Amino acid sequence: MGRLQAAAFELFAEQGFERTTVAEISRRAGLTQRTFFNHFADKREVLFGLGSEFQREIVRELVACAGTLPPLDAVVRALQAASDAMFEERRAVVKRRYEIIAANPELQERELRKQAELTDAIAAALRGRGLDPETALLTASAGMLVQQTAVRRWTQPAESRPLRELLSDALHSLRTIAAHATDQWVASPET
Amino acid sequence: MGRLQAAAFELFAEQGFERTTVAEISRRAGLTQRTFFNHFADKREVLFGLGSEFQREIVRELVACAGTLPPLDAVVRALQAASDAMFEERRAVVKRRYEIIAANPELQERELRKQAELTDAIAAALRGRGLDPETALLTASAGMLVQQTAVRRWTQPAESRPLRELLSDALHSLRTIAAHATDQWVASPET
Repeated sequence: MGRLQAAAFELFAEQGFERTTVAEISRRAGLTQRTFFNHFADKREVLFGLGSEFQREIVRELVACAGTLPPLDAVVRALQAASDAMFEERRAVVKRRYEIIAANPELQERELRKQAELTDAIAAALRGRGLDPETALLTASAGMLVQQTAVRRWTQPAESRPLRELLSDALHSLRTIAAHATDQWVASPET
Repeated sequence: MGRLQAAAFELFAEQGFERTTVAEISRRAGLTQRTFFNHFADKREVLFGLGSEFQREIVRELVACAGTLPPLDAVVRALQAASDAMFEERRAVVKRRYEIIAANPELQERELRKQAELTDAIAAALRGRGLDPETALLTASAGMLVQQTAVRRWTQPAESRPLRELLSDALHSLRTIAAHATDQWVASPET
C-alpha cells in the first residue's frame, strides 16, 4: 500500500492527478492493477483513504478517553494520538498530498467535504459523551481549526517539530485569540 | 432583484434547484429573462450573489474599524454590522437558502468553497492591519465559526433573537470552550 501510494503521488506531481491512470500507478509501483484494486477503490482513494482511517482513529480515541476532560482538550488529545499513529512518520507524503489537492479544484472540494464529515463525526462522538448538539459541533469545529492550523505549519519546509507539539501550539493560539475577544457590542450597535 | 430571488427560492423549494430554469423564475416573478440577466449571471448566482456582497461589506468594515480592537473582536464586529445591513430583515429567505443548498451536494460544495473564500478575504484584511499570516488565518477561521454557529441558531424555527445577539452568544461560547482547554499533553503522550 505504501509503494502504491508513493508511486501515485510521484505521478500526480509529475503529470497531474487527472492525467494519471491506475495502470500507470501500478506499473510504477511494480505491482499489478489487481493489487491496486485490492487496496483502493480508485485513484482518488489513494488521496482520501487515509482520511477515513484517521477519522475512525479519532472517534475511537474520543470514545475511550476520560469523561472528565474538557471537550476541546479531549478532541485535541485524540488528534494528537491519531497524528502520532498515522501522520508523524509521513510528513513528506502528507505535504505532497496537500500540494496535489491544492492544484485541483475538484479535489479541493472533496477535501472540504471530507473535513466537514470529520467535523460531524467528532461532534457525534462528543454528543455521545453527553454534550448538547450545539456545543458538540462548535467544539468539533474548533478542534478541526486547531488540526488545520497545526498541519499547515507542520508541512512548511522550515518546520521540524512534531505534529503533536504543533497541535498544542495551535490550541494555545486559538485560546489566546478567543480570550482577547470581548462581546460588548450587542447593546451599542454601530450605525 | 428581491422579486426574482423570491420567485427563484419558491421554485427551488417546489421542484428542486436543478429542474428550475431561468425562464420559469422570470415568469414567476412577472419579469423578462433579460431583466433576470441584468441582475444575475445564472440561477446559481441567485443563491450565492448575496455572499459576495456580504464579503465586500465585511472587508469594508474591517478596514474601517479602530486598529486598537483585538482581532477576533474586530471580525465579529464586522460580521455584526454586515448582518444588520444584509441579513437581519431576511431571516426567512436565508433559512430557505440553507434548505435548498442542503438538498444539493453540488451546491453544498460551492457553499463550502465560498466560505473558504470569505475566510481568506477576512484573513487578508487582517494581514492588512499588521497581523502575521498565521494569526490572521486562525482569527478569520474562528470568526467564520462564530458566524456559522450564529446563523445556524438564527434560522431555527423557535429562534427570534437578532443575528447580532446570536453572534455575540456564539463568540462567548467559543471563548468558553477554548478557555477550558489545557495543553499539557506534549510532555506525556499517550501510548
